Amino acid sequence: MKRIYLDHAATTPLDARVLKEMEPYFLENYGNASSLHSFGREAREAVEKSREAVAKILNAKPDEIVFNSGGTEGDNTALRGVIKASKTKRIVTSKIEHHAVEHTSKELEKEGAEVEFVEVDSEGFVDVAAIEKALAKETAIASIMHANNEIGTIEPIAEIGEMCREKGTIFHTDAVQSVGKEKIDVEKMNIDLLSASGHKFYGPKGVGFMYIKKGTKILPILHGGGHEKGMRSGTENVAGIVGLAKALEIAENEREKETAREKKLAERLVKGISEIGNSWVNGPEIGSKRLSNNINLGFDFVEGESMVFMMDEKGIACSTGSACSTKDLNPSHVLMAINLKPWKAHGSLRITTGRGTTEKDIDYAVESISEIVKRLREISPLRKGKDISKFEKGFEERHSH
Amino acid sequence: MKRIYLDHAATTPLDARVLKEMEPYFLENYGNASSLHSFGREAREAVEKSREAVAKILNAKPDEIVFNSGGTEGDNTALRGVIKASKTKRIVTSKIEHHAVEHTSKELEKEGAEVEFVEVDSEGFVDVAAIEKALAKETAIASIMHANNEIGTIEPIAEIGEMCREKGTIFHTDAVQSVGKEKIDVEKMNIDLLSASGHKFYGPKGVGFMYIKKGTKILPILHGGGHEKGMRSGTENVAGIVGLAKALEIAENEREKETAREKKLAERLVKGISEIGNSWVNGPEIGSKRLSNNINLGFDFVEGESMVFMMDEKGIACSTGSACSTKDLNPSHVLMAINLKPWKAHGSLRITTGRGTTEKDIDYAVESISEIVKRLREISPLRKGKDISKFEKGFEERHSH
Repeated sequence: MKRIYLDHAATTPLDARVLKEMEPYFLENYGNASSLHSFGREAREAVEKSREAVAKILNAKPDEIVFNSGGTEGDNTALRGVIKASKTKRIVTSKIEHHAVEHTSKELEKEGAEVEFVEVDSEGFVDVAAIEKALAKETAIASIMHANNEIGTIEPIAEIGEMCREKGTIFHTDAVQSVGKEKIDVEKMNIDLLSASGHKFYGPKGVGFMYIKKGTKILPILHGGGHEKGMRSGTENVAGIVGLAKALEIAENEREKETAREKKLAERLVKGISEIGNSWVNGPEIGSKRLSNNINLGFDFVEGESMVFMMDEKGIACSTGSACSTKDLNPSHVLMAINLKPWKAHGSLRITTGRGTTEKDIDYAVESISEIVKRLREISPLRKGKDISKFEKGFEERHSH
Repeated sequence: MKRIYLDHAATTPLDARVLKEMEPYFLENYGNASSLHSFGREAREAVEKSREAVAKILNAKPDEIVFNSGGTEGDNTALRGVIKASKTKRIVTSKIEHHAVEHTSKELEKEGAEVEFVEVDSEGFVDVAAIEKALAKETAIASIMHANNEIGTIEPIAEIGEMCREKGTIFHTDAVQSVGKEKIDVEKMNIDLLSASGHKFYGPKGVGFMYIKKGTKILPILHGGGHEKGMRSGTENVAGIVGLAKALEIAENEREKETAREKKLAERLVKGISEIGNSWVNGPEIGSKRLSNNINLGFDFVEGESMVFMMDEKGIACSTGSACSTKDLNPSHVLMAINLKPWKAHGSLRITTGRGTTEKDIDYAVESISEIVKRLREISPLRKGKDISKFEKGFEERHSH
């Protein structure tokens, strides 16, 4: 059976060109970048060349880029590192952040920090006025993601960054979903800290980077040999870093073309399923301020998890929401934050296209979704009528815990 | 020019068999191990198979193995994670630990923990009686490395682990240098926590693991999606994990044979340079409780860094000590702890052999070292006499800061 991968927000395949770039650093140029000899110098050069490439794409300076193990480490470092360095132990963030920001904030709250989770509207846009209000109280760090991983909403971070700068609050953005997909200019967007992960833009897993604006008061969370100018101890993952930089260069070169292509695929998909009744798109309208490759669909009377399994049986890989919390039976905190009823939030299906996705794949996905929704609705407690309250009750009983 | 790599304690080349095992997880089986679909399940299976392989080698249970980004993260997690979970904020460690343990301990000290750094003898063996005395006071965690990265000393960790168990102190060992080289049985050795790093045993950089004995009171230091049973959030580095496990299996299979071979190479090298006057081996005698691939040499009247550069000019890669602190001009804390005078500590050269090292390489190293020591001594301030006090004075002037 042909398999179709429509879960690029969870992870992407490594680009073959990236693997080629990484290969010499596995078997030949395998030195430790901190060693003084020629093997070490080769590794150091590769790391610094990668740092320059990443910096250039973001309009940053090379020494503002710190390589690490990925987005989770970046988010943890941003929040914990700033709170540790600051006298003000106050964090402003949103209700739809990735768990790496959400759970770290809650952890810091337990440790004595004050955290304010700002609301979002029904499309997932953070309430900028509410952020402004929250920042009126002295705040160490505001952390607002660039693009949401579940519903694709692109937040007005330049505006929020500007507000933060005026107030003297450090501004962090989790850009894990947007790096390589959206244009990022850290200067123009008033970003102080940014987290990103290689495997979301066709680079390797286990490597990421942070942008740390020069002069930002932040302390490291890992201590040791003092690598990455003391911000991230641990032997540099040379092959991974080289791969990340190459992947970002490719993504940047192909960004506009690919974004336009994925936008068309999204429109095709949404048009295709428009005939299914009681269905909708979660998040902003397709084609608006939304990641071009993200289509988060909602269906009444079905459960997203069942859909994912049935799609998988048809060879299509997609998800209900974040891959990072699939063992969690609670409805998505993002879908709850945009005010979906719990049983509507459970009926979500996230399709995220990628470089390999074709129109044919989309047509097959449309056909499969239509068939699966029909089948699931037939066996749902509501198959004969339209009494939503009954379905809701049954759903809540099954999911109570 | 042929290049000879004699710095395997800094990092090792990736084994070609390991790369082959990793390859399918780059371009084909690239799923996120937390995804529910077939791509995700394949990734999950690979991760769990790797976990079982690693556990088996250490005589651990699979759910006691947590994958992470490497040794530095492991050491930080052990110390910070235990202190966070414990009411007793006391740490016992040694004076020759890797910087990841040393600096994390000092950081925790700044944050309010009490840290006792136990002395070692002139060969680098920790003073077991001193540890016992230190443990008399209620202690949350004792962290003693298995094998020293600079001088190769293999510590009596089974004995220390037993003491810790009696006292109810959690025992952590940084086994970054010993995993794959020395037999490790976490049960027999009374280990509660262990840190290791893939790139030290011919696996990839940027991936490591911790052993966490079931029931050990420890909290995670990274928060997010709750991966690795909540102990290490962040998308699993599938290819890296697969590579690490394969590398460890190979290392374990070839361990005894390789250890014996490296021991002979070490003996050959030490015999070869025995004619150079005013020279010695730092650490335990070759062939005794010492990593078989580690030869740390000391030479009067020369500076190690100059030797490293001159060896490099001859195509030989080696180091003065830890690659993790090469930018640090202070003498090695390990060599200071074994009571070497600062200027003797600065005259050290660490040779660490590996799978690819041949007798011919060793003979060439001997020849090169002899020549370089002679040359450096000729141009040293002492070239005409033997007045050590003069040399010492000049040295201290050059290194004062």
